[in-house]
Amino acid sequence: MLFRSRVAESALLKPQGIPVTEQELIRQISEQVVRRLGCHYGPATSARNGIPIGVSVRHCHLSPQNVETLFGAGHELHVRNWLYQTGQFAAQETVTVVGPKGALYNVRVLGPTRSAPQVEVSRTDAIALGVMPPIRQSVADGDGERIVLVGPAGVVDAPNALIRAKRHIHTHPEGAAEVGAKDGDLIDVRLEGGNQLTLNEVLIRVNPDFVPEMHLDTDEGNAADLICGDKAYVIA
Amino acid sequence: MLFRSRVAESALLKPQGIPVTEQELIRQISEQVVRRLGCHYGPATSARNGIPIGVSVRHCHLSPQNVETLFGAGHELHVRNWLYQTGQFAAQETVTVVGPKGALYNVRVLGPTRSAPQVEVSRTDAIALGVMPPIRQSVADGDGERIVLVGPAGVVDAPNALIRAKRHIHTHPEGAAEVGAKDGDLIDVRLEGGNQLTLNEVLIRVNPDFVPEMHLDTDEGNAADLICGDKAYVIA
Repeated sequence: MLFRSRVAESALLKPQGIPVTEQELIRQISEQVVRRLGCHYGPATSARNGIPIGVSVRHCHLSPQNVETLFGAGHELHVRNWLYQTGQFAAQETVTVVGPKGALYNVRVLGPTRSAPQVEVSRTDAIALGVMPPIRQSVADGDGERIVLVGPAGVVDAPNALIRAKRHIHTHPEGAAEVGAKDGDLIDVRLEGGNQLTLNEVLIRVNPDFVPEMHLDTDEGNAADLICGDKAYVIA
Repeated sequence: MLFRSRVAESALLKPQGIPVTEQELIRQISEQVVRRLGCHYGPATSARNGIPIGVSVRHCHLSPQNVETLFGAGHELHVRNWLYQTGQFAAQETVTVVGPKGALYNVRVLGPTRSAPQVEVSRTDAIALGVMPPIRQSVADGDGERIVLVGPAGVVDAPNALIRAKRHIHTHPEGAAEVGAKDGDLIDVRLEGGNQLTLNEVLIRVNPDFVPEMHLDTDEGNAADLICGDKAYVIA
Protein backbone atom coordinates (compact mmCIF):
# COMPACT_ATOMS: atom_id res chain seq x y z
CA MET A 1 0.00 0.00 0.00
CA LEU A 2 2.79 2.35 0.98
CA PHE A 3 4.63 1.35 -2.18
CA ARG A 4 1.56 2.04 -4.30
CA SER A 5 1.01 5.58 -2.95
CA ARG A 6 4.64 6.48 -3.49
CA VAL A 7 4.35 5.37 -7.10
CA ALA A 8 1.13 7.38 -7.40
CA GLU A 9 2.82 10.60 -6.31
CA SER A 10 5.62 10.27 -8.82
CA ALA A 11 3.20 9.34 -11.59
CA LEU A 12 1.16 12.50 -11.03
CA LEU A 13 4.22 14.49 -12.06
CA LYS A 14 4.22 12.99 -15.55
CA PRO A 15 2.51 15.39 -17.99
CA GLN A 16 1.55 13.34 -21.05
CA GLY A 17 -0.86 10.37 -21.50
CA ILE A 18 -2.56 8.49 -18.67
CA PRO A 19 0.02 7.44 -16.10
CA VAL A 20 0.17 3.75 -15.19
CA THR A 21 -0.99 4.58 -11.67
CA GLU A 22 -4.10 6.34 -12.94
CA GLN A 23 -4.84 3.30 -15.05
CA GLU A 24 -4.53 1.34 -11.84
CA LEU A 25 -6.89 3.85 -10.19
CA ILE A 26 -9.40 3.41 -13.01
CA ARG A 27 -9.10 -0.35 -12.69
CA GLN A 28 -9.70 -0.19 -8.96
CA ILE A 29 -12.68 2.17 -9.26
CA SER A 30 -14.22 0.01 -12.00
CA GLU A 31 -13.72 -3.06 -9.87
CA GLN A 32 -15.45 -1.40 -6.91
CA VAL A 33 -18.34 -0.19 -9.04
CA VAL A 34 -18.73 -3.67 -10.51
CA ARG A 35 -18.63 -5.20 -7.04
CA ARG A 36 -21.16 -2.72 -5.64
CA LEU A 37 -23.51 -3.43 -8.51
CA GLY A 38 -23.20 -7.10 -7.69
CA CYS A 39 -21.81 -7.82 -11.13
CA HIS A 40 -19.67 -10.68 -9.90
CA TYR A 41 -22.94 -12.37 -10.84
CA GLY A 42 -22.28 -11.49 -14.46
CA PRO A 43 -24.61 -9.51 -16.75
CA ALA A 44 -28.24 -8.73 -15.88
CA THR A 45 -30.28 -11.87 -15.42
CA SER A 46 -33.90 -12.94 -15.38
CA ALA A 47 -35.48 -15.79 -13.45
CA ARG A 48 -35.65 -17.81 -16.64
CA ASN A 49 -32.02 -17.56 -17.65
CA GLY A 50 -30.64 -18.07 -14.20
CA ILE A 51 -31.00 -16.40 -10.82
CA PRO A 52 -27.82 -15.16 -9.16
CA ILE A 53 -27.01 -17.07 -5.97
CA GLY A 54 -25.90 -15.26 -2.84
CA VAL A 55 -24.37 -17.56 -0.22
CA SER A 56 -24.95 -15.98 3.18
CA VAL A 57 -22.15 -16.63 5.60
CA ARG A 58 -23.24 -16.43 9.27
CA HIS A 59 -24.17 -12.86 10.12
CA CYS A 60 -26.35 -10.79 12.40
CA HIS A 61 -28.85 -7.98 12.18
CA LEU A 62 -29.05 -5.58 15.13
CA SER A 63 -31.42 -2.97 16.54
CA PRO A 64 -30.08 0.59 16.99
CA GLN A 65 -30.03 -0.10 20.74
CA ASN A 66 -28.04 -3.34 20.23
CA VAL A 67 -25.49 -1.33 18.23
CA GLU A 68 -25.06 1.13 21.09
CA THR A 69 -24.81 -1.65 23.68
CA LEU A 70 -22.23 -3.59 21.69
CA PHE A 71 -20.18 -0.74 20.22
CA GLY A 72 -20.76 2.22 22.56
CA ALA A 73 -23.25 5.06 23.14
CA GLY A 74 -24.14 6.96 19.99
CA HIS A 75 -22.43 4.40 17.75
CA GLU A 76 -23.84 3.82 14.26
CA LEU A 77 -22.93 1.07 11.80
CA HIS A 78 -20.31 1.88 9.16
CA VAL A 79 -20.76 0.61 5.62
CA ARG A 80 -18.06 -1.85 4.61
CA ASN A 81 -19.62 -2.87 1.29
CA TRP A 82 -23.05 -2.70 -0.30
CA LEU A 83 -24.95 -5.93 -0.87
CA TYR A 84 -26.92 -6.94 -3.93
CA GLN A 85 -30.34 -6.03 -2.45
CA THR A 86 -30.87 -2.27 -2.56
CA GLY A 87 -29.89 -0.45 0.63
CA GLN A 88 -28.51 -3.53 2.39
CA PHE A 89 -24.89 -3.50 3.45
CA ALA A 90 -22.21 -5.45 5.28
CA ALA A 91 -20.99 -3.27 8.13
CA GLN A 92 -17.42 -2.83 9.25
CA GLU A 93 -18.55 -4.01 12.67
CA THR A 94 -18.28 -7.64 13.77
CA VAL A 95 -19.31 -9.41 16.97
CA THR A 96 -18.55 -12.64 18.79
CA VAL A 97 -21.53 -15.01 18.86
CA VAL A 98 -21.50 -17.20 21.97
CA GLY A 99 -23.46 -20.42 22.44
CA PRO A 100 -23.46 -22.99 25.25
CA LYS A 101 -20.72 -25.11 23.63
CA GLY A 102 -18.68 -22.78 21.43
CA ALA A 103 -18.29 -19.31 19.97
CA LEU A 104 -18.06 -17.90 16.46
CA TYR A 105 -15.68 -14.98 16.07
CA ASN A 106 -15.72 -12.00 13.72
CA VAL A 107 -19.34 -12.52 12.74
CA ARG A 108 -20.32 -9.77 10.32
CA VAL A 109 -23.08 -7.30 11.22
CA LEU A 110 -25.41 -6.40 8.33
CA GLY A 111 -27.19 -3.10 8.03
CA PRO A 112 -29.32 -1.13 8.16
CA THR A 113 -30.53 -1.76 11.70
CA ARG A 114 -33.87 -3.47 12.36
CA SER A 115 -36.37 -3.46 15.19
CA ALA A 116 -34.98 -6.65 16.75
CA PRO A 117 -31.72 -8.62 16.62
CA GLN A 118 -31.50 -11.65 14.32
CA VAL A 119 -28.50 -13.96 14.12
CA GLU A 120 -28.39 -16.32 11.13
CA VAL A 121 -26.16 -19.39 11.14
CA SER A 122 -25.82 -22.65 9.22
CA ARG A 123 -26.41 -26.00 10.85
CA THR A 124 -22.65 -26.57 10.88
CA ASP A 125 -22.28 -23.29 12.82
CA ALA A 126 -25.13 -24.30 15.12
CA ILE A 127 -23.36 -27.57 15.96
CA ALA A 128 -20.24 -25.58 16.87
CA LEU A 129 -22.34 -23.24 19.06
CA GLY A 130 -24.06 -26.18 20.73
CA VAL A 131 -27.61 -25.03 20.03
CA MET A 132 -29.95 -26.01 17.18
CA PRO A 133 -32.19 -23.12 16.15
CA PRO A 134 -35.26 -23.63 13.95
CA ILE A 135 -35.24 -22.95 10.20
CA ARG A 136 -37.17 -19.71 9.81
CA GLN A 137 -37.68 -16.85 7.43
CA SER A 138 -37.08 -14.41 10.29
CA VAL A 139 -37.28 -14.11 14.06
CA ALA A 140 -40.76 -12.62 13.69
CA ASP A 141 -42.17 -16.00 14.65
CA GLY A 142 -40.56 -15.53 18.04
CA ASP A 143 -39.24 -19.06 18.43
CA GLY A 144 -35.56 -18.50 17.63
CA GLU A 145 -33.01 -19.74 20.17
CA ARG A 146 -31.30 -17.67 22.80
CA ILE A 147 -27.88 -16.37 21.77
CA VAL A 148 -25.30 -14.07 23.35
CA LEU A 149 -23.50 -11.37 21.34
CA VAL A 150 -20.26 -9.86 22.60
CA GLY A 151 -18.97 -6.56 21.24
CA PRO A 152 -16.12 -4.26 22.22
CA ALA A 153 -18.38 -2.13 24.47
CA GLY A 154 -20.94 -4.58 25.84
CA VAL A 155 -23.01 -7.72 25.65
CA VAL A 156 -26.49 -8.52 24.28
CA ASP A 157 -28.26 -11.56 25.68
CA ALA A 158 -30.93 -12.10 23.02
CA PRO A 159 -33.65 -14.53 24.11
CA ASN A 160 -34.89 -15.69 20.67
CA ALA A 161 -32.61 -14.14 18.03
CA LEU A 162 -30.84 -17.23 16.67
CA ILE A 163 -32.27 -18.90 13.55
CA ARG A 164 -31.15 -20.91 10.56
CA ALA A 165 -32.38 -18.87 7.60
CA LYS A 166 -34.84 -20.59 5.31
CA ARG A 167 -33.46 -20.53 1.78
CA HIS A 168 -35.44 -18.22 -0.45
CA ILE A 169 -35.52 -16.29 -3.69
CA HIS A 170 -35.95 -12.53 -3.77
CA THR A 171 -37.52 -11.22 -6.93
CA HIS A 172 -39.55 -8.37 -8.35
CA PRO A 173 -43.07 -9.14 -9.65
CA GLU A 174 -41.87 -9.43 -13.28
CA GLY A 175 -39.27 -12.03 -12.29
CA ALA A 176 -41.87 -14.05 -10.40
CA ALA A 177 -44.34 -13.85 -13.29
CA GLU A 178 -41.66 -15.07 -15.67
CA VAL A 179 -41.51 -18.41 -13.86
CA GLY A 180 -45.21 -18.52 -13.02
CA ALA A 181 -44.73 -18.01 -9.29
CA LYS A 182 -46.16 -15.59 -6.75
CA ASP A 183 -45.12 -14.37 -3.31
CA GLY A 184 -45.08 -17.23 -0.79
CA ASP A 185 -44.91 -20.04 -3.37
CA LEU A 186 -42.56 -22.98 -2.82
CA ILE A 187 -40.67 -23.99 -5.95
CA ASP A 188 -37.89 -26.38 -7.02
CA VAL A 189 -34.59 -24.88 -8.06
CA ARG A 190 -31.63 -26.61 -9.69
CA LEU A 191 -28.26 -25.18 -8.74
CA GLU A 192 -25.32 -24.79 -11.04
CA GLY A 193 -22.25 -26.06 -9.19
CA GLY A 194 -19.61 -28.76 -9.06
CA ASN A 195 -21.91 -31.04 -7.05
CA GLN A 196 -25.25 -31.20 -8.86
CA LEU A 197 -28.11 -30.43 -6.51
CA THR A 198 -31.77 -29.40 -6.56
CA LEU A 199 -33.34 -27.47 -3.71
CA ASN A 200 -37.00 -28.34 -3.24
CA GLU A 201 -39.66 -26.14 -1.67
CA VAL A 202 -37.73 -22.89 -2.02
CA LEU A 203 -39.73 -19.89 -0.82
CA ILE A 204 -40.39 -17.10 -3.30
CA ARG A 205 -40.44 -13.55 -1.87
CA VAL A 206 -41.78 -10.91 -4.20
CA ASN A 207 -41.32 -7.16 -3.77
CA PRO A 208 -40.95 -4.39 -6.36
CA ASP A 209 -37.74 -3.32 -4.56
CA PHE A 210 -36.14 -6.77 -4.80
CA VAL A 211 -33.44 -7.66 -7.28
CA PRO A 212 -33.66 -11.35 -8.38
CA GLU A 213 -31.33 -13.30 -6.11
CA MET A 214 -31.37 -16.64 -4.33
CA HIS A 215 -30.14 -16.72 -0.74
CA LEU A 216 -28.54 -19.91 0.61
CA ASP A 217 -26.46 -20.65 3.65
CA THR A 218 -22.92 -21.99 3.60
CA ASP A 219 -23.96 -25.62 4.14
CA GLU A 220 -26.14 -25.45 1.04
CA GLY A 221 -23.51 -23.57 -0.97
CA ASN A 222 -20.80 -26.00 0.04
CA ALA A 223 -22.99 -29.06 -0.55
CA ALA A 224 -23.51 -27.83 -4.13
CA ASP A 225 -19.83 -26.91 -4.47
CA LEU A 226 -20.85 -23.49 -5.74
CA ILE A 227 -18.38 -20.98 -7.01
CA CYS A 228 -18.85 -17.28 -7.55
CA GLY A 229 -21.16 -16.63 -10.50
CA ASP A 230 -23.06 -19.92 -10.33
CA LYS A 231 -26.80 -19.53 -10.86
CA ALA A 232 -30.05 -21.15 -9.84
CA TYR A 233 -32.66 -22.38 -12.33
CA VAL A 234 -36.35 -22.74 -11.51
CA ILE A 235 -37.53 -26.18 -12.62
CA ALA A 236 -41.01 -26.43 -11.10
CA MET B 1 -21.53 -44.24 36.31
CA LEU B 2 -20.36 -44.87 39.84
CA PHE B 3 -23.95 -44.48 40.99
CA ARG B 4 -25.17 -47.00 38.43
CA SER B 5 -22.68 -49.74 39.50
CA ARG B 6 -23.55 -49.30 43.13
CA VAL B 7 -27.21 -49.77 42.31
CA ALA B 8 -26.30 -52.83 40.23
CA GLU B 9 -24.57 -54.52 43.12
CA SER B 10 -27.48 -54.04 45.48
CA ALA B 11 -29.96 -55.18 42.84
CA LEU B 12 -28.12 -58.45 42.30
CA LEU B 13 -28.94 -59.34 45.91
CA LYS B 14 -32.69 -59.31 45.22
CA PRO B 15 -33.92 -62.89 44.66
CA GLN B 16 -37.28 -62.63 42.88
CA GLY B 17 -38.20 -61.23 39.38
CA ILE B 18 -35.82 -59.39 37.09
CA PRO B 19 -34.10 -56.60 38.99
CA VAL B 20 -34.41 -53.08 37.61
CA THR B 21 -30.68 -52.99 36.96
CA GLU B 22 -30.82 -56.15 34.84
CA GLN B 23 -33.61 -54.59 32.86
CA GLU B 24 -31.27 -51.66 32.37
CA LEU B 25 -28.55 -54.12 31.33
CA ILE B 26 -30.93 -55.72 28.80
CA ARG B 27 -31.85 -52.29 27.51
CA GLN B 28 -28.21 -51.31 27.09
CA ILE B 29 -27.26 -54.59 25.37
CA SER B 30 -30.25 -54.31 23.00
CA GLU B 31 -29.30 -50.75 22.21
CA GLN B 32 -25.72 -51.80 21.39
CA VAL B 33 -26.88 -54.70 19.23
CA VAL B 34 -29.28 -52.41 17.40
CA ARG B 35 -26.55 -49.84 16.90
CA ARG B 36 -24.05 -52.43 15.64
CA LEU B 37 -26.59 -53.77 13.19
CA GLY B 38 -27.08 -50.26 11.95
CA CYS B 39 -30.74 -50.39 12.91
CA HIS B 40 -30.84 -46.74 13.81
CA TYR B 41 -31.87 -46.78 10.17
CA GLY B 42 -35.03 -48.61 11.15
CA PRO B 43 -36.20 -51.97 9.79
CA ALA B 44 -34.68 -53.64 6.72
CA THR B 45 -35.04 -51.46 3.63
CA SER B 46 -34.92 -51.80 -0.12
CA ALA B 47 -33.93 -49.20 -2.65
CA ARG B 48 -37.57 -48.64 -3.50
CA ASN B 49 -38.86 -47.97 -0.02
CA GLY B 50 -35.98 -45.77 1.04
CA ILE B 51 -32.22 -46.11 1.25
CA PRO B 52 -30.63 -45.48 4.65
CA ILE B 53 -28.42 -42.40 4.67
CA GLY B 54 -25.02 -42.43 6.32
CA VAL B 55 -23.57 -38.96 6.88
CA SER B 56 -19.78 -39.29 6.88
CA VAL B 57 -18.10 -36.89 9.23
CA ARG B 58 -14.49 -36.09 8.26
CA HIS B 59 -12.35 -39.18 8.67
CA CYS B 60 -9.25 -40.91 7.38
CA HIS B 61 -8.19 -44.27 6.08
CA LEU B 62 -4.60 -45.34 6.72
CA SER B 63 -2.11 -47.90 5.45
CA PRO B 64 -0.61 -50.35 8.00
CA GLN B 65 2.63 -48.38 7.75
CA ASN B 66 0.80 -45.07 8.42
CA VAL B 67 -0.69 -46.66 11.54
CA GLU B 68 2.75 -47.62 12.82
CA THR B 69 4.19 -44.19 12.01
CA LEU B 70 1.34 -42.34 13.74
CA PHE B 71 0.68 -44.64 16.71
CA GLY B 72 3.96 -46.57 17.22
CA ALA B 73 5.79 -49.63 15.91
CA GLY B 74 3.62 -52.74 15.81
CA HIS B 75 0.44 -50.77 16.49
CA GLU B 76 -2.81 -52.02 15.00
CA LEU B 77 -6.18 -50.22 14.88
CA HIS B 78 -8.68 -50.99 17.64
CA VAL B 79 -12.35 -51.33 16.79
CA ARG B 80 -14.49 -48.66 18.44
CA ASN B 81 -17.73 -49.50 16.63
CA TRP B 82 -18.72 -51.39 13.51
CA LEU B 83 -20.12 -49.46 10.56
CA TYR B 84 -23.07 -50.37 8.40
CA GLN B 85 -20.96 -51.79 5.55
CA THR B 86 -19.71 -55.27 6.43
CA GLY B 87 -16.23 -55.37 7.94
CA GLN B 88 -15.82 -51.58 8.10
CA PHE B 89 -15.26 -49.97 11.47
CA ALA B 90 -14.57 -46.70 13.24
CA ALA B 91 -11.30 -47.14 15.15
CA GLN B 92 -10.57 -45.90 18.62
CA GLU B 93 -7.64 -44.00 17.09
CA THR B 94 -7.90 -40.37 16.02
CA VAL B 95 -5.40 -38.02 14.38
CA THR B 96 -4.91 -34.31 13.90
CA VAL B 97 -5.28 -33.24 10.25
CA VAL B 98 -3.14 -30.21 9.46
CA GLY B 99 -3.56 -27.90 6.45
CA PRO B 100 -1.82 -24.66 5.50
CA LYS B 101 -4.40 -22.48 7.30
CA GLY B 102 -5.90 -24.60 10.06
CA ALA B 103 -6.13 -27.99 11.70
CA LEU B 104 -8.95 -30.43 12.47
CA TYR B 105 -8.60 -32.29 15.75
CA ASN B 106 -9.76 -35.74 16.82
CA VAL B 107 -10.40 -36.88 13.26
CA ARG B 108 -11.59 -40.49 13.39
CA VAL B 109 -9.57 -43.24 11.70
CA LEU B 110 -11.66 -45.86 9.88
CA GLY B 111 -10.57 -49.45 9.42
CA PRO B 112 -9.53 -51.83 8.17
CA THR B 113 -6.30 -50.40 6.78
CA ARG B 114 -5.86 -49.83 3.05
CA SER B 115 -2.90 -49.67 0.68
CA ALA B 116 -2.71 -45.85 0.81
CA PRO B 117 -3.90 -43.09 3.12
CA GLN B 118 -7.11 -41.22 2.24
CA VAL B 119 -8.47 -38.27 4.21
CA GLU B 120 -12.08 -37.28 3.48
CA VAL B 121 -13.41 -33.85 4.45
CA SER B 122 -16.35 -31.63 3.58
CA ARG B 123 -15.90 -28.31 1.80
CA THR B 124 -16.53 -26.52 5.10
CA ASP B 125 -13.66 -28.52 6.61
CA ALA B 126 -11.50 -27.80 3.57
CA ILE B 127 -12.05 -24.05 4.00
CA ALA B 128 -10.92 -24.38 7.64
CA LEU B 129 -7.83 -26.32 6.52
CA GLY B 130 -7.06 -23.76 3.82
CA VAL B 131 -6.86 -26.23 0.95
CA MET B 132 -9.55 -27.21 -1.56
CA PRO B 133 -9.26 -30.87 -2.58
CA PRO B 134 -11.11 -32.27 -5.60
CA ILE B 135 -14.36 -34.24 -5.30
CA ARG B 136 -13.37 -37.83 -5.92
CA GLN B 137 -14.55 -41.36 -5.34
CA SER B 138 -11.12 -42.22 -3.92
CA VAL B 139 -7.48 -41.16 -4.03
CA ALA B 140 -6.89 -43.79 -6.72
CA ASP B 141 -6.99 -41.00 -9.29
CA GLY B 142 -3.87 -39.62 -7.65
CA ASP B 143 -4.87 -35.97 -7.71
CA GLY B 144 -5.87 -35.48 -4.06
CA GLU B 145 -4.25 -32.61 -2.17
CA ARG B 146 -1.30 -32.86 0.16
CA ILE B 147 -2.24 -33.18 3.83
CA VAL B 148 -0.32 -33.71 7.05
CA LEU B 149 -1.48 -36.16 9.73
CA VAL B 150 -0.20 -35.91 13.28
CA GLY B 151 -0.50 -38.81 15.70
CA PRO B 152 0.84 -39.45 19.18
CA ALA B 153 3.95 -41.27 17.84
CA GLY B 154 4.70 -39.54 14.55
CA VAL B 155 3.71 -37.60 11.47
CA VAL B 156 2.60 -38.59 7.96
CA ASP B 157 3.08 -36.04 5.18
CA ALA B 158 0.76 -37.46 2.54
CA PRO B 159 1.27 -35.91 -0.90
CA ASN B 160 -2.16 -36.58 -2.43
CA ALA B 161 -4.37 -38.09 0.27
CA LEU B 162 -6.92 -35.32 0.80
CA ILE B 163 -10.22 -35.50 -1.10
CA ARG B 164 -13.84 -34.47 -0.76
CA ALA B 165 -15.73 -37.74 -1.12
CA LYS B 166 -18.16 -37.92 -4.02
CA ARG B 167 -21.60 -38.80 -2.67
CA HIS B 168 -22.65 -42.28 -3.65
CA ILE B 169 -24.98 -45.15 -3.00
CA HIS B 170 -23.73 -48.59 -2.02
CA THR B 171 -26.03 -51.41 -2.97
CA HIS B 172 -26.11 -55.11 -3.80
CA PRO B 173 -27.16 -56.11 -7.35
CA GLU B 174 -30.79 -56.79 -6.31
CA GLY B 175 -31.07 -53.27 -4.83
CA ALA B 176 -29.71 -51.74 -8.02
CA ALA B 177 -32.03 -53.81 -10.21
CA GLU B 178 -35.00 -52.69 -8.13
CA VAL B 179 -34.46 -49.08 -9.24
CA GLY B 180 -33.26 -49.98 -12.74
CA ALA B 181 -29.68 -48.88 -12.13
CA LYS B 182 -26.30 -50.53 -12.62
CA ASP B 183 -22.81 -49.97 -11.24
CA GLY B 184 -21.45 -46.57 -12.28
CA ASP B 185 -24.84 -45.02 -13.10
CA LEU B 186 -25.64 -41.48 -11.99
CA ILE B 187 -29.12 -41.09 -10.57
CA ASP B 188 -31.27 -38.46 -8.83
CA VAL B 189 -32.13 -38.99 -5.20
CA ARG B 190 -34.59 -37.08 -3.06
CA LEU B 191 -33.64 -36.82 0.60
CA GLU B 192 -36.01 -36.97 3.50
CA GLY B 193 -35.10 -34.16 5.86
CA GLY B 194 -36.22 -30.86 7.34
CA ASN B 195 -34.85 -28.94 4.36
CA GLN B 196 -36.18 -30.59 1.20
CA LEU B 197 -33.37 -31.40 -1.20
CA THR B 198 -32.61 -33.57 -4.23
CA LEU B 199 -29.10 -34.75 -5.02
CA ASN B 200 -28.54 -35.07 -8.76
CA GLU B 201 -25.99 -37.32 -10.44
CA VAL B 202 -25.42 -39.60 -7.48
CA LEU B 203 -23.04 -42.44 -8.26
CA ILE B 204 -24.31 -45.99 -7.83
CA ARG B 205 -21.76 -48.54 -6.62
CA VAL B 206 -22.86 -52.15 -6.86
CA ASN B 207 -21.22 -55.06 -5.09
CA PRO B 208 -22.72 -58.28 -3.69
CA ASP B 209 -21.07 -57.45 -0.34
CA PHE B 210 -22.67 -54.00 -0.09
CA VAL B 211 -25.63 -53.20 2.14
CA PRO B 212 -27.90 -50.50 0.60
CA GLU B 213 -26.73 -47.17 2.04
CA MET B 214 -26.21 -43.65 0.75
CA HIS B 215 -23.04 -41.86 1.83
CA LEU B 216 -23.09 -38.07 2.14
CA ASP B 217 -20.76 -35.61 3.76
CA THR B 218 -21.70 -33.25 6.59
CA ASP B 219 -22.32 -30.26 4.29
CA GLU B 220 -24.88 -32.28 2.35
CA GLY B 221 -26.43 -33.74 5.51
CA ASN B 222 -26.65 -30.33 7.14
CA ALA B 223 -27.99 -28.65 3.99
CA ALA B 224 -30.83 -31.19 3.99
CA ASP B 225 -31.28 -30.85 7.76
CA LEU B 226 -31.17 -34.63 8.07
CA ILE B 227 -31.80 -36.40 11.30
CA CYS B 228 -30.95 -39.96 12.24
CA GLY B 229 -33.20 -42.40 10.35
CA ASP B 230 -33.95 -40.15 7.37
CA LYS B 231 -33.85 -41.97 4.06
CA ALA B 232 -33.07 -41.32 0.41
CA TYR B 233 -35.50 -42.06 -2.43
CA VAL B 234 -34.40 -42.72 -6.00
CA ILE B 235 -36.47 -40.55 -8.35
CA ALA B 236 -34.73 -41.01 -11.70
